[in-house]
Amino acid sequence: MSGQLTVVGLGPGPSEWITPAADATISTADVVLGYESYLARLSPRRGQIFEASDNREELTRARRALELASSGKRVVIVSGGDPGVFAMAAAVFESVDNAPELANEIDIRVEPGVTAVLAAAARIGAPLGNDFCVISLSDNLKPWAMIEKRLRLAAEADFVIALYNPASKARPDQIQEAFRVLQTVRAPQTIVAFARAVGRTDESIEITTLADASKALCDMRTVVLIGSPSTRAVHGSDGRTWVYTPRFVRDA
Amino acid sequence: MSGQLTVVGLGPGPSEWITPAADATISTADVVLGYESYLARLSPRRGQIFEASDNREELTRARRALELASSGKRVVIVSGGDPGVFAMAAAVFESVDNAPELANEIDIRVEPGVTAVLAAAARIGAPLGNDFCVISLSDNLKPWAMIEKRLRLAAEADFVIALYNPASKARPDQIQEAFRVLQTVRAPQTIVAFARAVGRTDESIEITTLADASKALCDMRTVVLIGSPSTRAVHGSDGRTWVYTPRFVRDA
Repeated sequence: MSGQLTVVGLGPGPSEWITPAADATISTADVVLGYESYLARLSPRRGQIFEASDNREELTRARRALELASSGKRVVIVSGGDPGVFAMAAAVFESVDNAPELANEIDIRVEPGVTAVLAAAARIGAPLGNDFCVISLSDNLKPWAMIEKRLRLAAEADFVIALYNPASKARPDQIQEAFRVLQTVRAPQTIVAFARAVGRTDESIEITTLADASKALCDMRTVVLIGSPSTRAVHGSDGRTWVYTPRFVRDA
Repeated sequence: MSGQLTVVGLGPGPSEWITPAADATISTADVVLGYESYLARLSPRRGQIFEASDNREELTRARRALELASSGKRVVIVSGGDPGVFAMAAAVFESVDNAPELANEIDIRVEPGVTAVLAAAARIGAPLGNDFCVISLSDNLKPWAMIEKRLRLAAEADFVIALYNPASKARPDQIQEAFRVLQTVRAPQTIVAFARAVGRTDESIEITTLADASKALCDMRTVVLIGSPSTRAVHGSDGRTWVYTPRFVRDA
Protein backbone atom coordinates (compact mmCIF):
# COMPACT_ATOMS: atom_id res chain seq x y z
CA MET A 1 0.00 0.00 0.00
CA SER A 2 1.58 3.24 -1.11
CA GLY A 3 0.57 6.63 0.20
CA GLN A 4 1.16 10.16 -0.84
CA LEU A 5 2.33 13.24 1.06
CA THR A 6 2.20 16.68 -0.53
CA VAL A 7 3.34 19.85 1.20
CA VAL A 8 1.15 22.63 -0.15
CA GLY A 9 1.56 26.42 -0.06
CA LEU A 10 -1.57 28.51 0.52
CA GLY A 11 -0.02 31.83 -0.47
CA PRO A 12 0.07 34.88 1.81
CA GLY A 13 -3.59 35.23 2.77
CA PRO A 14 -6.67 35.42 0.57
CA SER A 15 -7.99 32.40 -1.32
CA GLU A 16 -7.53 34.27 -4.62
CA TRP A 17 -3.78 33.69 -4.17
CA ILE A 18 -4.11 29.89 -3.75
CA THR A 19 -3.12 28.24 -7.05
CA PRO A 20 -5.56 25.82 -8.72
CA ALA A 21 -2.90 23.10 -8.31
CA ALA A 22 -2.77 23.66 -4.53
CA ASP A 23 -6.56 23.74 -4.36
CA ALA A 24 -6.92 20.48 -6.31
CA THR A 25 -4.30 18.72 -4.17
CA ILE A 26 -6.06 19.74 -0.96
CA SER A 27 -9.50 18.72 -2.20
CA THR A 28 -8.41 15.16 -3.01
CA ALA A 29 -6.56 14.58 0.29
CA ASP A 30 -7.80 12.13 2.92
CA VAL A 31 -6.12 14.05 5.73
CA VAL A 32 -5.00 17.70 5.88
CA LEU A 33 -2.52 18.69 8.58
CA GLY A 34 -1.40 22.17 9.50
CA TYR A 35 -1.15 25.06 11.87
CA GLU A 36 -4.66 25.90 13.00
CA SER A 37 -4.76 29.38 11.45
CA TYR A 38 -3.90 27.91 8.03
CA LEU A 39 -6.55 25.18 8.32
CA ALA A 40 -9.07 27.87 9.28
CA ARG A 41 -8.68 29.24 5.74
CA LEU A 42 -10.04 25.98 4.27
CA SER A 43 -13.25 23.94 4.50
CA PRO A 44 -13.05 20.16 4.81
CA ARG A 45 -15.06 18.25 2.23
CA ARG A 46 -17.19 15.32 3.37
CA GLY A 47 -15.09 12.44 4.75
CA GLN A 48 -11.94 14.52 4.93
CA ILE A 49 -10.01 14.82 8.19
CA PHE A 50 -8.40 18.11 9.31
CA GLU A 51 -5.74 17.84 12.03
CA ALA A 52 -4.63 21.15 13.51
CA SER A 53 -1.44 21.60 15.50
CA ASP A 54 0.63 24.35 17.02
CA ASN A 55 3.05 26.30 14.81
CA ARG A 56 6.06 25.24 16.89
CA GLU A 57 5.46 21.51 16.39
CA GLU A 58 6.76 21.26 12.83
CA LEU A 59 8.83 18.08 13.14
CA THR A 60 6.07 16.30 15.07
CA ARG A 61 3.57 17.28 12.36
CA ALA A 62 5.93 16.15 9.59
CA ARG A 63 6.43 12.77 11.28
CA ARG A 64 2.70 12.32 11.83
CA ALA A 65 2.08 13.12 8.14
CA LEU A 66 4.69 10.56 7.02
CA GLU A 67 3.12 7.91 9.27
CA LEU A 68 -0.35 8.60 7.88
CA ALA A 69 0.98 8.44 4.32
CA SER A 70 2.77 5.16 5.13
CA SER A 71 -0.61 3.66 5.96
CA GLY A 72 -1.70 4.41 2.38
CA LYS A 73 -3.50 7.69 2.88
CA ARG A 74 -3.33 10.78 0.67
CA VAL A 75 -1.98 13.36 3.09
CA VAL A 76 -1.50 17.10 2.71
CA ILE A 77 0.42 19.44 4.98
CA VAL A 78 -0.54 23.06 4.42
CA SER A 79 1.86 25.94 4.89
CA GLY A 80 1.40 29.69 4.51
CA GLY A 81 3.01 31.36 1.49
CA ASP A 82 5.33 28.93 -0.27
CA PRO A 83 5.96 25.69 1.67
CA GLY A 84 9.65 25.66 0.70
CA VAL A 85 10.62 29.07 2.08
CA PHE A 86 11.60 28.61 5.74
CA ALA A 87 8.60 26.32 6.08
CA MET A 88 7.09 22.83 6.29
CA ALA A 89 8.76 21.26 3.23
CA ALA A 90 12.19 21.48 4.89
CA ALA A 91 10.72 19.98 8.09
CA VAL A 92 9.38 17.01 6.09
CA PHE A 93 12.71 16.25 4.41
CA GLU A 94 14.51 16.75 7.73
CA SER A 95 12.20 14.10 9.21
CA VAL A 96 12.98 11.75 6.33
CA ASP A 97 16.69 12.44 6.78
CA ASN A 98 16.40 11.55 10.49
CA ALA A 99 14.39 8.38 9.84
CA PRO A 100 14.57 7.28 6.16
CA GLU A 101 12.33 4.26 6.85
CA LEU A 102 9.44 6.71 7.38
CA ALA A 103 9.48 7.58 3.67
CA ASN A 104 9.34 4.00 2.37
CA GLU A 105 6.83 3.69 -0.45
CA ILE A 106 5.58 7.26 -0.01
CA ASP A 107 5.25 9.58 -2.97
CA ILE A 108 6.41 12.91 -1.48
CA ARG A 109 5.71 16.13 -3.39
CA VAL A 110 5.87 19.87 -2.83
CA GLU A 111 3.31 22.22 -4.36
CA PRO A 112 4.67 25.79 -4.65
CA GLY A 113 2.82 28.95 -3.64
CA VAL A 114 3.20 32.73 -3.67
CA THR A 115 5.68 33.51 -0.90
CA ALA A 116 5.13 36.59 1.28
CA VAL A 117 7.88 38.75 -0.22
CA LEU A 118 6.31 38.55 -3.70
CA ALA A 119 2.95 39.80 -2.42
CA ALA A 120 4.68 42.47 -0.33
CA ALA A 121 6.73 43.60 -3.34
CA ALA A 122 3.61 43.74 -5.52
CA ARG A 123 1.94 46.16 -3.10
CA ILE A 124 5.04 48.36 -2.89
CA GLY A 125 5.81 48.53 -6.63
CA ALA A 126 8.69 46.49 -8.03
CA PRO A 127 11.46 46.47 -5.42
CA LEU A 128 12.67 43.02 -6.61
CA GLY A 129 13.54 44.23 -10.11
CA ASN A 130 17.17 43.41 -9.43
CA ASP A 131 19.10 40.79 -7.42
CA PHE A 132 17.75 40.18 -3.92
CA CYS A 133 18.06 37.99 -0.85
CA VAL A 134 15.61 36.69 1.71
CA ILE A 135 16.67 36.33 5.33
CA SER A 136 14.65 35.05 8.28
CA LEU A 137 15.37 36.87 11.53
CA SER A 138 14.14 33.96 13.66
CA ASP A 139 17.23 33.51 15.77
CA ASN A 140 15.78 30.51 17.56
CA LEU A 141 16.83 28.66 14.38
CA LYS A 142 20.32 30.08 13.96
CA PRO A 143 22.86 32.09 15.94
CA TRP A 144 22.57 35.90 15.81
CA ALA A 145 26.23 36.17 14.71
CA MET A 146 25.31 34.33 11.51
CA ILE A 147 22.35 36.64 10.86
CA GLU A 148 24.55 39.68 11.44
CA LYS A 149 27.23 38.39 9.03
CA ARG A 150 24.62 37.68 6.35
CA LEU A 151 23.08 41.15 6.72
CA ARG A 152 26.48 42.81 6.38
CA LEU A 153 27.56 40.77 3.33
CA ALA A 154 24.13 41.19 1.70
CA ALA A 155 24.41 44.94 2.17
CA GLU A 156 27.93 44.95 0.69
CA ALA A 157 26.66 42.93 -2.30
CA ASP A 158 24.04 45.64 -3.02
CA PHE A 159 21.22 43.10 -2.77
CA VAL A 160 17.69 44.24 -2.13
CA ILE A 161 17.13 42.57 1.26
CA ALA A 162 13.85 41.02 2.41
CA LEU A 163 13.46 40.15 6.08
CA TYR A 164 10.95 37.51 7.23
CA ASN A 165 9.92 37.09 10.89
CA PRO A 166 11.40 40.47 11.81
CA ALA A 167 10.08 40.61 15.36
CA SER A 168 8.27 38.62 18.00
CA LYS A 169 7.30 39.13 21.62
CA ALA A 170 10.38 37.17 22.67
CA ARG A 171 12.79 39.36 20.62
CA PRO A 172 11.20 42.76 19.95
CA ASP A 173 14.51 44.61 19.56
CA GLN A 174 16.20 42.33 17.06
CA ILE A 175 14.98 44.22 13.98
CA GLN A 176 16.46 47.43 15.42
CA GLU A 177 19.76 45.58 15.76
CA ALA A 178 19.46 44.49 12.09
CA PHE A 179 18.91 48.11 11.01
CA ARG A 180 22.02 49.09 12.98
CA VAL A 181 24.12 46.51 11.09
CA LEU A 182 22.70 47.64 7.74
CA GLN A 183 23.40 51.29 8.61
CA THR A 184 27.12 50.53 8.84
CA VAL A 185 27.07 49.74 5.10
CA ARG A 186 24.04 51.42 3.51
CA ALA A 187 23.25 55.15 3.29
CA PRO A 188 20.69 56.71 5.68
CA GLN A 189 18.40 57.59 2.73
CA THR A 190 18.17 53.91 1.63
CA ILE A 191 14.49 53.10 1.06
CA VAL A 192 12.90 50.73 3.60
CA ALA A 193 9.37 49.38 3.22
CA PHE A 194 7.24 47.60 5.81
CA ALA A 195 4.51 45.40 4.36
CA ARG A 196 2.24 44.11 7.10
CA ALA A 197 -0.50 41.46 6.74
CA VAL A 198 -0.54 41.74 2.95
CA GLY A 199 -3.79 40.48 1.46
CA ARG A 200 -5.65 40.71 4.79
CA THR A 201 -8.21 43.29 5.86
CA ASP A 202 -5.69 44.90 8.20
CA GLU A 203 -2.98 45.18 5.54
CA SER A 204 -0.69 48.20 5.87
CA ILE A 205 2.28 49.45 3.87
CA GLU A 206 4.77 52.00 5.19
CA ILE A 207 7.61 53.42 3.12
CA THR A 208 10.44 55.19 4.91
CA THR A 209 14.24 55.36 4.97
CA LEU A 210 16.90 53.38 6.80
CA ALA A 211 17.54 56.43 9.00
CA ASP A 212 13.88 56.51 10.08
CA ALA A 213 13.12 52.76 10.09
CA SER A 214 11.69 51.73 13.43
CA LYS A 215 10.78 48.47 15.12
CA ALA A 216 7.38 50.05 15.87
CA LEU A 217 6.44 49.39 12.24
CA CYS A 218 6.70 45.61 12.39
CA ASP A 219 5.48 42.41 13.95
CA MET A 220 5.63 38.72 12.95
CA ARG A 221 3.21 39.33 10.04
CA THR A 222 5.45 41.98 8.48
CA VAL A 223 7.92 41.58 5.63
CA VAL A 224 10.60 44.29 5.73
CA LEU A 225 12.24 45.26 2.44
CA ILE A 226 15.51 47.21 2.42
CA GLY A 227 16.29 48.78 -0.93
CA SER A 228 19.61 48.48 -2.72
CA PRO A 229 21.56 51.68 -3.50
CA SER A 230 19.72 51.83 -6.85
CA THR A 231 16.20 51.33 -5.46
CA ARG A 232 14.07 54.43 -6.16
CA ALA A 233 10.76 55.96 -5.16
CA VAL A 234 8.38 57.26 -7.83
CA HIS A 235 5.50 59.55 -6.97
CA GLY A 236 2.22 59.36 -8.85
CA SER A 237 0.07 62.43 -9.50
CA ASP A 238 -2.43 61.07 -6.96
CA GLY A 239 0.22 61.31 -4.25
CA ARG A 240 0.86 57.60 -4.21
CA THR A 241 4.45 56.37 -3.84
CA TRP A 242 5.81 53.31 -5.62
CA VAL A 243 9.21 51.79 -4.99
CA TYR A 244 11.15 50.00 -7.70
CA THR A 245 14.64 48.73 -8.39
CA PRO A 246 15.78 49.26 -11.99
CA ARG A 247 16.67 46.08 -13.87
CA PHE A 248 19.59 47.87 -15.48
CA VAL A 249 22.64 48.87 -13.43
CA ARG A 250 25.24 51.10 -15.03
CA ASP A 251 28.97 50.61 -14.52
CA ALA A 252 30.08 52.13 -11.23
CA MET B 1 -11.60 59.15 -17.72
CA SER B 2 -9.37 57.00 -15.54
CA GLY B 3 -7.78 53.76 -16.69
CA GLN B 4 -6.17 50.86 -15.00
CA LEU B 5 -2.90 49.03 -15.60
CA THR B 6 -2.13 45.76 -13.83
CA VAL B 7 1.09 43.83 -14.28
CA VAL B 8 0.17 40.17 -13.82
CA GLY B 9 2.33 37.10 -13.18
CA LEU B 10 1.37 33.85 -14.92
CA GLY B 11 3.63 31.60 -12.86
CA PRO B 12 6.28 29.35 -14.37
CA GLY B 13 4.28 27.41 -16.94
CA PRO B 14 1.06 25.46 -16.56
CA SER B 15 -2.29 27.15 -16.00
CA GLU B 16 -2.69 25.30 -12.69
CA TRP B 17 -0.05 27.68 -11.29
CA ILE B 18 -1.90 30.86 -12.34
CA THR B 19 -3.63 32.31 -9.26
CA PRO B 20 -7.39 32.98 -9.38
CA ALA B 21 -6.57 36.67 -8.78
CA ALA B 22 -4.34 36.78 -11.88
CA ASP B 23 -6.94 34.91 -13.88
CA ALA B 24 -9.74 37.28 -12.86
CA THR B 25 -7.64 40.36 -13.64
CA ILE B 26 -6.82 39.08 -17.12
CA SER B 27 -10.41 38.13 -17.89
CA THR B 28 -11.74 41.63 -17.15
CA ALA B 29 -9.06 43.48 -19.16
CA ASP B 30 -9.82 45.37 -22.37
CA VAL B 31 -6.28 44.90 -23.68
CA VAL B 32 -3.65 42.32 -22.73
CA LEU B 33 -0.04 43.02 -23.68
CA GLY B 34 2.92 40.69 -23.44
CA TYR B 35 5.66 38.64 -24.94
CA GLU B 36 4.08 36.36 -27.53
CA SER B 37 4.92 33.09 -25.76
CA TYR B 38 3.14 34.31 -22.61
CA LEU B 39 0.04 35.43 -24.55
CA ALA B 40 0.00 32.03 -26.25
CA ARG B 41 -0.81 30.53 -22.83
CA LEU B 42 -4.11 32.52 -22.71
CA SER B 43 -7.28 32.74 -24.78
CA PRO B 44 -8.80 36.16 -25.46
CA ARG B 45 -12.46 36.47 -24.52
CA ARG B 46 -14.83 38.13 -26.97
CA GLY B 47 -14.03 41.82 -27.50
CA GLN B 48 -10.66 41.58 -25.81
CA ILE B 49 -7.50 42.70 -27.60
CA PHE B 50 -4.21 40.78 -27.29
CA GLU B 51 -1.07 42.68 -28.34
CA ALA B 52 2.07 40.56 -28.62
CA SER B 53 5.57 41.99 -28.66
CA ASP B 54 9.15 40.83 -28.57
CA ASN B 55 10.74 40.02 -25.22
CA ARG B 56 13.44 42.67 -25.66
CA GLU B 57 10.96 45.53 -26.03
CA GLU B 58 10.02 45.85 -22.38
CA LEU B 59 10.13 49.65 -22.03
CA THR B 60 8.23 50.12 -25.31
CA ARG B 61 5.56 47.70 -24.10
CA ALA B 62 5.33 49.42 -20.71
CA ARG B 63 4.91 52.83 -22.38
CA ARG B 64 2.27 51.48 -24.76
CA ALA B 65 0.38 49.99 -21.79
CA LEU B 66 0.47 53.31 -19.91
CA GLU B 67 -0.82 55.16 -22.99
CA LEU B 68 -3.68 52.70 -23.43
CA ALA B 69 -4.58 52.97 -19.74
CA SER B 70 -4.47 56.79 -20.01
CA SER B 71 -7.21 56.57 -22.61
CA GLY B 72 -9.43 54.91 -20.01
CA LYS B 73 -8.88 51.26 -20.83
CA ARG B 74 -8.37 48.37 -18.43
CA VAL B 75 -4.94 47.14 -19.47
CA VAL B 76 -3.00 44.07 -18.36
CA ILE B 77 0.66 43.29 -19.03
CA VAL B 78 1.42 39.61 -18.52
CA SER B 79 4.78 38.36 -17.33
CA GLY B 80 6.08 34.84 -16.71
CA GLY B 81 6.55 33.76 -13.09
CA ASP B 82 6.18 36.72 -10.77
CA PRO B 83 6.03 40.10 -12.56
CA GLY B 84 8.19 41.79 -9.93
CA VAL B 85 11.22 39.48 -10.14
CA PHE B 86 13.54 40.88 -12.86
CA ALA B 87 10.44 41.44 -14.96
CA MET B 88 7.77 43.76 -16.37
CA ALA B 89 6.70 45.49 -13.14
CA ALA B 90 10.09 47.19 -12.84
CA ALA B 91 9.89 48.22 -16.52
CA VAL B 92 6.51 49.87 -15.88
CA PHE B 93 7.71 51.90 -12.90
CA GLU B 94 10.90 52.80 -14.78
CA SER B 95 8.69 54.19 -17.56
CA VAL B 96 6.69 56.20 -15.03
CA ASP B 97 9.92 57.44 -13.49
CA ASN B 98 11.12 58.59 -16.94
CA ALA B 99 7.82 60.27 -17.81
CA PRO B 100 5.59 60.79 -14.73
CA GLU B 101 2.85 62.42 -16.84
CA LEU B 102 2.21 58.98 -18.39
CA ALA B 103 0.82 57.74 -15.09
CA ASN B 104 -1.65 60.57 -14.56
CA GLU B 105 -5.01 59.24 -13.43
CA ILE B 106 -3.97 55.63 -13.91
CA ASP B 107 -4.56 53.04 -11.22
CA ILE B 108 -1.37 50.93 -11.44
CA ARG B 109 -1.28 47.55 -9.71
CA VAL B 110 0.92 44.47 -9.58
CA GLU B 111 -0.57 40.98 -9.20
CA PRO B 112 1.99 38.51 -7.78
CA GLY B 113 2.71 35.03 -9.13
CA VAL B 114 4.79 31.95 -8.39
CA THR B 115 8.33 32.86 -9.43
CA ALA B 116 10.50 30.22 -11.14
CA VAL B 117 12.77 29.48 -8.18
CA LEU B 118 9.82 28.41 -6.01
CA ALA B 119 8.64 25.89 -8.61
CA ALA B 120 12.21 24.70 -9.17
CA ALA B 121 12.75 24.29 -5.42
CA ALA B 122 9.47 22.36 -5.08
CA ARG B 123 10.65 19.80 -7.64
CA ILE B 124 14.05 19.44 -5.98
CA GLY B 125 12.83 19.13 -2.38
CA ALA B 126 13.21 22.09 -0.01
CA PRO B 127 16.51 23.80 -0.88
CA LEU B 128 15.12 27.20 0.26
CA GLY B 129 14.59 26.10 3.85
CA ASN B 130 17.16 28.65 4.96
CA ASP B 131 18.28 32.13 3.83
CA PHE B 132 18.75 32.50 0.09
CA CYS B 133 19.45 34.97 -2.69
CA VAL B 134 18.32 35.26 -6.29
CA ILE B 135 20.71 36.59 -8.92
CA SER B 136 20.09 37.14 -12.63
CA LEU B 137 23.11 36.37 -14.79
CA SER B 138 21.87 38.59 -17.65
CA ASP B 139 24.94 40.75 -18.01
CA ASN B 140 23.31 42.89 -20.67
CA LEU B 141 21.61 44.55 -17.68
CA LYS B 142 24.61 44.96 -15.39
CA PRO B 143 28.39 44.72 -15.52
CA TRP B 144 29.95 41.28 -15.03
CA ALA B 145 32.18 42.64 -12.25
CA MET B 146 29.03 43.34 -10.21
CA ILE B 147 27.69 39.83 -10.79
CA GLU B 148 31.04 38.35 -9.78
CA LYS B 149 31.14 40.43 -6.57
CA ARG B 150 27.59 39.40 -5.68
CA LEU B 151 28.35 35.72 -6.26
CA ARG B 152 31.43 35.87 -4.06
CA LEU B 153 29.71 37.73 -1.19
CA ALA B 154 26.63 35.48 -1.44
CA ALA B 155 28.88 32.43 -1.18
CA GLU B 156 30.69 33.93 1.83
CA ALA B 157 27.32 34.65 3.48
CA ASP B 158 26.38 30.94 3.18
CA PHE B 159 23.24 31.80 1.23
CA VAL B 160 21.56 29.20 -0.92
CA ILE B 161 22.04 30.85 -4.33
CA ALA B 162 19.48 30.76 -7.16
CA LEU B 163 20.61 31.84 -10.62
CA TYR B 164 18.09 33.06 -13.22
CA ASN B 165 18.95 33.44 -16.93
CA PRO B 166 22.12 31.36 -16.52
CA ALA B 167 23.00 31.11 -20.21
CA SER B 168 22.03 32.34 -23.63
CA LYS B 169 23.37 31.94 -27.16
CA ALA B 170 25.18 35.25 -26.78
CA ARG B 171 26.95 34.22 -23.55
CA PRO B 172 27.11 30.44 -23.28
CA ASP B 173 30.21 30.37 -21.03
CA GLN B 174 29.09 32.80 -18.37
CA ILE B 175 27.60 30.15 -16.08
CA GLN B 176 30.92 28.30 -16.12
CA GLU B 177 32.57 31.54 -15.04
CA ALA B 178 30.00 31.82 -12.20
CA PHE B 179 30.84 28.28 -11.04
CA ARG B 180 34.53 29.20 -11.06
CA VAL B 181 33.84 32.19 -8.75
CA LEU B 182 31.71 30.04 -6.42
CA GLN B 183 34.43 27.35 -6.31
CA THR B 184 36.84 29.85 -4.78
CA VAL B 185 34.56 29.98 -1.71
CA ARG B 186 32.41 26.83 -1.61
CA ALA B 187 33.53 23.20 -1.30
CA PRO B 188 33.61 20.95 -4.39
CA GLN B 189 30.93 18.67 -2.88
CA THR B 190 28.44 21.57 -2.56
CA ILE B 191 25.12 20.44 -4.01
CA VAL B 192 24.09 22.07 -7.30
CA ALA B 193 20.70 21.50 -8.92
CA PHE B 194 19.58 22.36 -12.45
CA ALA B 195 15.82 22.75 -12.87
CA ARG B 196 14.92 23.16 -16.52
CA ALA B 197 11.48 24.07 -17.95
CA VAL B 198 9.71 23.29 -14.68
CA GLY B 199 6.01 22.58 -15.19
CA ARG B 200 6.45 21.94 -18.93
CA THR B 201 6.36 18.63 -20.77
CA ASP B 202 10.13 18.79 -21.30
CA GLU B 203 10.91 19.47 -17.63
CA SER B 204 14.18 18.01 -16.36
CA ILE B 205 15.92 18.08 -12.98
CA GLU B 206 19.61 17.28 -12.52
CA ILE B 207 21.33 17.12 -9.16
CA THR B 208 25.11 17.21 -9.03
CA THR B 209 27.97 18.90 -7.17
CA LEU B 210 29.83 22.15 -7.70
CA ALA B 211 32.87 20.14 -8.85
CA ASP B 212 30.80 18.47 -11.58
CA ALA B 213 28.44 21.33 -12.48
CA SER B 214 28.57 22.01 -16.19
CA LYS B 215 27.18 24.62 -18.55
CA ALA B 216 25.86 21.72 -20.65
CA LEU B 217 23.06 21.32 -18.12
CA CYS B 218 21.48 24.73 -18.62
CA ASP B 219 19.82 27.13 -21.03
CA MET B 220 17.65 30.26 -20.59
CA ARG B 221 14.78 28.16 -19.22
CA THR B 222 16.89 26.72 -16.40
CA VAL B 223 17.08 27.85 -12.79
CA VAL B 224 20.36 26.84 -11.16
CA LEU B 225 20.38 26.32 -7.39
CA ILE B 226 23.67 26.22 -5.49
CA GLY B 227 23.33 24.78 -2.02
CA SER B 228 24.70 26.38 1.13
CA PRO B 229 27.26 24.45 3.20
CA SER B 230 24.35 22.96 5.19
CA THR B 231 22.25 21.88 2.17
CA ARG B 232 21.86 18.09 2.15
CA ALA B 233 20.71 15.30 -0.14
CA VAL B 234 18.28 12.67 1.14
CA HIS B 235 17.74 9.40 -0.71
CA GLY B 236 14.34 7.72 -0.76
CA SER B 237 13.98 3.93 -0.86
CA ASP B 238 12.79 4.26 -4.47
CA GLY B 239 16.17 5.72 -5.44
CA ARG B 240 14.83 9.25 -5.66
CA THR B 241 17.02 12.09 -4.36
CA TRP B 242 15.64 15.14 -2.57
CA VAL B 243 17.67 18.18 -1.64
CA TYR B 244 16.85 20.28 1.41
CA THR B 245 18.41 22.98 3.55
CA PRO B 246 17.71 22.56 7.27
CA ARG B 247 15.90 25.48 8.89
CA PHE B 248 18.06 25.11 11.94
CA VAL B 249 21.76 26.03 11.86
CA ARG B 250 23.94 25.15 14.82
CA ASP B 251 26.64 27.41 16.16
CA ALA B 252 29.81 27.10 14.09
